[in-house]
Formats: sequence, structure tokens, C-alpha cells
Amino acid sequence: MRAYDIILKKRNGEILTKDEIEYMIMGYVDGNIPDYQMAAFLMAIFFKHLNNEERANLTEIMAKSGDMLNLSKIEGKKVDKHSTGGVGDKTTLVVAPIVASLGIPVAKMSGRALGHTGGTIDKLESIPGFRTSLTLDEFFKNVNKYKIAVVGQTANLAPADKKIYALRDATATVDEVSLIASSIMSKKLAGGADAFVLDVKVGSGAFMKDIDSAKELATAMVEIAKSHKKEAVAVLTNMDEPLGTFAGNSLEVLEAINTLKGNGDKKFVELCLTLSAWMCYLAGKDSYEKCHKLAYDSLKHGNALEKFKEFVIAQGGDKNVIENPEKVLPISNKYIEFKAKNDGYISKINTEKVGIACNYLGAGRKKKEDNIDHSVGLEFFKKIGDKVSKGETIVKLYISENSAAEIALELLDEAYIISDEETKKLNIILDIVK
Amino acid sequence: MRAYDIILKKRNGEILTKDEIEYMIMGYVDGNIPDYQMAAFLMAIFFKHLNNEERANLTEIMAKSGDMLNLSKIEGKKVDKHSTGGVGDKTTLVVAPIVASLGIPVAKMSGRALGHTGGTIDKLESIPGFRTSLTLDEFFKNVNKYKIAVVGQTANLAPADKKIYALRDATATVDEVSLIASSIMSKKLAGGADAFVLDVKVGSGAFMKDIDSAKELATAMVEIAKSHKKEAVAVLTNMDEPLGTFAGNSLEVLEAINTLKGNGDKKFVELCLTLSAWMCYLAGKDSYEKCHKLAYDSLKHGNALEKFKEFVIAQGGDKNVIENPEKVLPISNKYIEFKAKNDGYISKINTEKVGIACNYLGAGRKKKEDNIDHSVGLEFFKKIGDKVSKGETIVKLYISENSAAEIALELLDEAYIISDEETKKLNIILDIVK
Repeated sequence: MRAYDIILKKRNGEILTKDEIEYMIMGYVDGNIPDYQMAAFLMAIFFKHLNNEERANLTEIMAKSGDMLNLSKIEGKKVDKHSTGGVGDKTTLVVAPIVASLGIPVAKMSGRALGHTGGTIDKLESIPGFRTSLTLDEFFKNVNKYKIAVVGQTANLAPADKKIYALRDATATVDEVSLIASSIMSKKLAGGADAFVLDVKVGSGAFMKDIDSAKELATAMVEIAKSHKKEAVAVLTNMDEPLGTFAGNSLEVLEAINTLKGNGDKKFVELCLTLSAWMCYLAGKDSYEKCHKLAYDSLKHGNALEKFKEFVIAQGGDKNVIENPEKVLPISNKYIEFKAKNDGYISKINTEKVGIACNYLGAGRKKKEDNIDHSVGLEFFKKIGDKVSKGETIVKLYISENSAAEIALELLDEAYIISDEETKKLNIILDIVK
Repeated sequence: MRAYDIILKKRNGEILTKDEIEYMIMGYVDGNIPDYQMAAFLMAIFFKHLNNEERANLTEIMAKSGDMLNLSKIEGKKVDKHSTGGVGDKTTLVVAPIVASLGIPVAKMSGRALGHTGGTIDKLESIPGFRTSLTLDEFFKNVNKYKIAVVGQTANLAPADKKIYALRDATATVDEVSLIASSIMSKKLAGGADAFVLDVKVGSGAFMKDIDSAKELATAMVEIAKSHKKEAVAVLTNMDEPLGTFAGNSLEVLEAINTLKGNGDKKFVELCLTLSAWMCYLAGKDSYEKCHKLAYDSLKHGNALEKFKEFVIAQGGDKNVIENPEKVLPISNKYIEFKAKNDGYISKINTEKVGIACNYLGAGRKKKEDNIDHSVGLEFFKKIGDKVSKGETIVKLYISENSAAEIALELLDEAYIISDEETKKLNIILDIVK
């Protein structure tokens, strides 16, 4: 077998065998196939794509290039949730306690912020004392005892994907559906869960800007899961405006706690209940409708809030964060406001720019090594379809000494479009793919 | 400017500016742009192509990456001939003396054999004493005095093309018309001639297998020349069967001398006269028809043969090669024969396999460093459309101790198809693009 022939075959639009894909991927990981051949191969895939079988094989090969977690020490069916990333996406902080409160194990390995989207691990670290790095034994013990644990990714999951992703990032070959789907699912497969709920974000703040490409990605991921005898449901959700009321680390934890207390943003609650219900359903608890009712009741009666408290204490966090989140969490008391320049309706939001504005305040990272400021962020007063008057606050910016507040304001000014015409409010749930 | 953005732009099918192409090419030559970005860029070009302006710019940038020869010391209009490479293509050995005999300067820098096709320089070195490396001054002096000199390429012509070609060869991005045309024409532009006759081979023994792609390449090259205010004519010629009677170094010199003596293969003579006439026309001598007559007369009356003798002597070769080529040239006296297995008509020849068979005898190179055996080669007794009887010789193989004669025989057996049905003979000249 020669790398040249495999590149040529894909370039000519032919279907690759599993052996051929493995030869390329593992040859590249081992250093036997040079960067430039892999780059040409990836660009050929960009134009000629992979079929379902090729995608399933690529995913499996990348998953098996590193650790394959064995979650058998955790009792029950393990359902993982994955979000493709959005602005203000604190969903895990609410969904995980709801699902755990129903007796379903939530063993979650989460990522850190990168790019314009946040990361669950960074958010949790806003809580004083909270430990996001547990040993694997602690992790399993906590899940069995409390049905919930959320930790940073320590295992060496899908290193082939990591190496290939870095190359894609340098060669304009990131945005191809086969490659995106295989990249995500290789890490999910290696993570060892039995089933997956995939929250595929769609819109100006998401990787997938339109519903068609998001649906294509969702379908690709669900098909890959099925090929590996794993159940999966993808929920397509709106990212044409920020999710909920806050973006920023402490602020999102605050919002999650408020939501668990019954004071959540309506659309955000709808999303959390939908995702919780699908996780519950895939865990085999009951029909989707009954699962939705269970999730709703857990939230309403405070079971999810109790579970969250247990979870925080179990991982060393300050339990007072539940009673007095605004006192316990490091939230900046310095702020400025982004105000409407004229009367009208919010007709459009470039949500990616909103996420970048949040990063300029210090909430995110440009490089892996960068530090995060947990105290800063954005509070959203107006969403699409809301009426605004000139001078009214649209976004409140919680800033610190190191915030590039002027740049953030400029970005928000570019991001929000105010129109004379009345604009329809957005739905949060756009479609389900299963 | 960033390489990433330029890759992305081409990937998305947009037109690149000259600055962008220069940034990529010279960045790559300088080592500032890594192999993997250039590989992705080339694959993007494979799928999205380059328009005429981009091709002209790429050609110019690659040409200017090295020496740009100044031929102003040579009197008269300099017309260069280029062949895209075929099997048995000894055309230069006949065309150059015909054209020079008409008083038109032929200052030819030629290549060596690589792949399944031969090289003029290797062929000339079959002549005892012949020097293919002259100083630039000797070269100019010879052309001014005799109107003819043929030397190996010593100048550093288009090093960017050389580096990029090596990468294309490893990444399955060779066969794209913009890249092929720019590669050839960058070396031609750097070579400094005023006009070009391009012999574009078409068929089983050529790089371009069908007339449409050959025409596309021919048009691309002519357009590139015109963009640089140089005249060019492309002659599309048949390579679905070997050219002339012999392939192999000494044997091709023998055939060239026989042709100059008036005993040439009919189609080979037709090709030589056509190319000579176009060179003569582009040099501004007369109309194409009159130039054809001049070339014909030069050949008929022995002027071209005289010129060839002058040329051989001028470059240190044994002049007895003209009188007694079979004695002077190192031609093996050991041979085997490839015979017809049944009666019928030669209906098809995989000419590339014939070229490879010739290499297995020792006439070519696999790597640049390999030595060539000037004494071996093939003699063709039958062409497409010829009737053969079982046991009749189709090809005579001149072999040496080091020839892999069995492999060569097998390849010939695969290459020649004998059919019951009568088959039409092939035309040599297929089309003209100007």
C-alpha cells in the first residue's frame, strides 16, 4: 500500500477500504506518512467527501488511536451529551443534575473554552474549591454514589484526531461534514458511553451557520453512532442569538443555579428539558414524553437543585454557592453598558461576534495557555424580536482591569442590528435527527 | 497575507491575485510556507483550477524564481521546440539540423530521460566524443557560427517549479492542466526564446491520453506564451504507437541519420517537416506553406544532413557517425524477438508499456542517478493497422547482459493487441493550436 495511491483514489472520488483509511491515519500518527501527503489527502476528502461506511471506519480508527475508556465500573446505561459549541451554553450545568436526579448516571468528561465558545470545565472552576480533575477511581465512585461527576478530559482520547485537526486548521480543511463528524464522534466513541445526545447548534454563533448543513452534520454523527451499535439523537438548536441571559464563567454558573431554582430563561429551560428528556429516554427510563415530564418535575420540585448541591460538595466546591451565588462566585462589580442607538426591533445578532466580545473582556482564550478571568462576561437584556428604545441597555458588560472593553463594545455594535420592522422571535428547538 | 487565507480562497473557487500567487510560490521556495500548506493548495488547484491570468502569473513567478537566460548574443529570432515526451521521439535530432540549415538559429537546451520517455541529451551522448555540456559562451558562439547547438540544461531554470513538481509527484496533483502548462512554460520562459513550437503528444504513450485533454493543455500553453508576448504554436501528434522505427539511444541516433539521408519512416518525416515548418514560420522566414517546402527541400537535398555533420563535429563528436552510423554507434549485436502469437491486425498498442519495456532493457532511468545503456533498445516492425501472421516479428529487442529481457517481453505481450478485424492506420498530426 502507498499513501500516493490512496490520495489518488480519493481524489478520483473512489471509496476507500478500512485498511486504506487505517494505513493513512495510523501512518500519519506514526510519522511514516508526511504532513504534506496527509494535507493533500484531507483536501481531496474536502472535495470528494466520505460515504457512511468510510466515516464510520475513520471514526473508529481515530478513536482506537488512543485510550478507549471502559465505563463498565459505572452501574446502568451511560448516556453522554455533546454540544457543538455556542455562546452562553451552560446547558450541562442544568441538564446533568436533572438527569442524575432521575437516577441515571452522568459521567461527563468536558472541555475547556477555545475559540468564541465557552467550556464547562472553566465555568465550574468559578466555584471556589471545585475540583475538575479527579482520578478515574474517584470519578467512577462519584458517579456510582451521586449519579453525577464532571471532570476535565485527562485520558488520551483520539490522539489521531488531535494531530489531524491541527493540520486541518492550517490547511483550510476543517469545514467538511465527514471530517467534522468523525472528529467529534471519535472522541465520543473513545469516551465509552452507550448512547449520545448531540446538541447541534445552528446559526450565527455556531460552527454550522444554516439548518441544512447542521442537519447534514447531525445525520452524519447519528449514522456513525449507529454503525458502532450506539444509539444517538441529535437536537438542532438555535444559535442565532446567545443562549439564556448570561455569557461568561461565573455568570453562567449563576444563571444555571437560578434556573435550577425555577427562575430560568424560558427558551433555555425548554432546551434543558428537551436534552434531559432525550438522555433519560436513551437511558431506557421511559417514553420521551414521560421522560420530559420527569425532567420537568425534577426541576420544578427542586430535586435537580439538590442534586447540583450534592455534586458541588462531592467535588470540593463551596456549598454556599447554592444559597448565595452572587456572593460566592467571583463576579465583577464593574460594568459598562451597550445601549440602543435608535428605536426599533432587534432583527439580527451576529452571535459569533458576541462570543468574541466576551473573550475580549477576558472570559475566553486565544491560545490554550491563556488564563481565563472568571469574573467577567455579558448579560443579555434583549433578544431577536424584542422592541428597544434609543438609549435602552441591550447588553451589560461585566469588566475587569484587563478587559478590552472598547473593542468589545465595537463588536457588539457590529453584532446587533436594529430594524424598524417588527421581527419574529426565534424558536430554540429547530429539529430532531435520530 | 496568510497562506491559510490563500488556500481557502482557491478552495472556494475564487480567483487569486498575482501577489497572492507570488506569496505562496516564493514563500514555499524560501521555506516560509511549509510543504503541507503547499500540498493543500495544489490539491485545491487540482479541483478548482486556475484561469488564464492566474496561469500566466504562476508561470512568470516560477520562471523568475531562477536564472532568466538572455539570448540576445544570438543573432536572429530564437524559436524553441518542446515535446511533452513520447516513445521513440528523436524529432529534435532531425528538426534542429533542418531548421538550422535554413539559417534559423537553433539554441536548444534539452533534458535527459526520465520516466518512460527518452531525452535528447542521452541520445546525443551515444555518439563517441559528443560533448553536451558547453560553456554559455561556447553555446552562443556555436549557434552564431553553425546556427545550431544542443546542450544539457545547466542553468538554474525555474527552481520553484522543480520544488513544486517534486511535491506534486508525491501528492497526486500532477495531472491538472494549469499546473502542467505553467510547469512547462515556466522553464520555456526562463530559457529566453522568442517563440515556441510545442509538440503535444496524445495517446497511450503520452502524458495526455485523449485529444480533448491534450487540446486543453495545448491551448493553455499557447495562451500563457501569448500573455507574455511570445508567439507559440502547438502541434498535437499521435502517441498511440511508438514514433518511427526505433526506441533507445544509439538506435534513435541511427534512425535520425537515416532519416536525414532520406530513408526515414513516412510518418516520422511528416512530423519532422511539420515541426520544422512551424519553427521556420515563427522565425519569420515565410508563410507556413513555403516554410514546409523549404524544410522538405533541405531534407531532400542533403542540406540538413550536412548541417547535422557540422553540428556533430562542432560539439566534438566522431564525424564518421554520418557515413557509418552502425559501426560508430554502440549498438548491441545481441537481440531477441517479440513475435505474433496469432494471425490478425495490430489493433492497439499500450505505448507507455513499450517505453517501460525499453527501460527494462537499460535504455532509461528509474532515478536521476541511474546509468543509461546506450546500446539497447527496440526496433518496431509493425504498427497499428499492420497485418501480422503468427510467428512474425513485431518488435526486435536489442539487449545487453544487464537487460531484464523477460520482463520487457512480458510488457510487450501486454502492450500489443492483435485483433481479427482490420484496423485503420493512425495519422501522425492530429491538430494544430495557435
